[in-house]
Amino acid sequence: MSYFDNFMKANRAYVDLHGTAHLPLKPKTRVAIVTCMDSRLHVAPALGLALGDAHILRNAGGRVTDDVIRSLVISEQQLGTSEIVVLHHTDCGAQTFTNEEFAQQLKRDLAVDVKDRDFLPFEDVEDSVREDMAILKNSPLIPDDIVISGAVYDVDTGRIKVVKES
Amino acid sequence: MSYFDNFMKANRAYVDLHGTAHLPLKPKTRVAIVTCMDSRLHVAPALGLALGDAHILRNAGGRVTDDVIRSLVISEQQLGTSEIVVLHHTDCGAQTFTNEEFAQQLKRDLAVDVKDRDFLPFEDVEDSVREDMAILKNSPLIPDDIVISGAVYDVDTGRIKVVKES
Repeated sequence: MSYFDNFMKANRAYVDLHGTAHLPLKPKTRVAIVTCMDSRLHVAPALGLALGDAHILRNAGGRVTDDVIRSLVISEQQLGTSEIVVLHHTDCGAQTFTNEEFAQQLKRDLAVDVKDRDFLPFEDVEDSVREDMAILKNSPLIPDDIVISGAVYDVDTGRIKVVKES
Repeated sequence: MSYFDNFMKANRAYVDLHGTAHLPLKPKTRVAIVTCMDSRLHVAPALGLALGDAHILRNAGGRVTDDVIRSLVISEQQLGTSEIVVLHHTDCGAQTFTNEEFAQQLKRDLAVDVKDRDFLPFEDVEDSVREDMAILKNSPLIPDDIVISGAVYDVDTGRIKVVKES
């Protein structure tokens, strides 16, 4: 039982609309967006992105992890981006647990001891944006001339609100 | 000078279309898609996803890293997903460098010694999908009953092709 077959059916219709066109590998706006995996955020329409416009990085919470830094270094140094937007959102799954309770849950349900692994939950969504902006500012792998913005997406209204760095 | 202001303008138009509606935190299809940050892939239309349908995880290459495992564990154990799709694509930025030359470039341009850090480049896109499917299968944090599929997206045609595991 797999939902993937439905995606493949939908993709056949998409191919007819897409046509054949080769867009450049380097994103047109030179922006990389770091955001959450949440299903209620469709980044392209919410920000007015056309195909080829911007890199979109997504994980649980939209947190700036080592893997996000890896991806941003490739985005900037190989593919020419020079701006980063950190976009978190309201009603986030990362606000539904603490590391301690999640570790207990994983021990009980998966029989895996994750010890003190940080799953990067947060309480206040504006604080989490500012925290991740600060990680970018302080990373030696992110040059000082990279423009960094922060924002919060409201999953109920689709509205994006700017977050100023602390 | 920031492109972010343009995104904010586009978002004001999006808000008018969006209206106000609260969708559930848990994705409707129970699928998490792991894919690349590439600007030429808009995941929602390419797979026929509506708002609220599926988690979308993206990094450079769509590689299954520790951070992707972190996100998938939250997706599955907190938010109810039970299926993963690994979706890489043609003409990927992760095919444009080797770790050795990239390390030299970063030393020269950023004055940072990344030593033997793995930026996860690959040569063959079907091999990279199979490699990442195997990482998922072997992870103790991904239960055996999670359905795992693999595929490659063609950035020129929009077409998705299934990749069978090795």
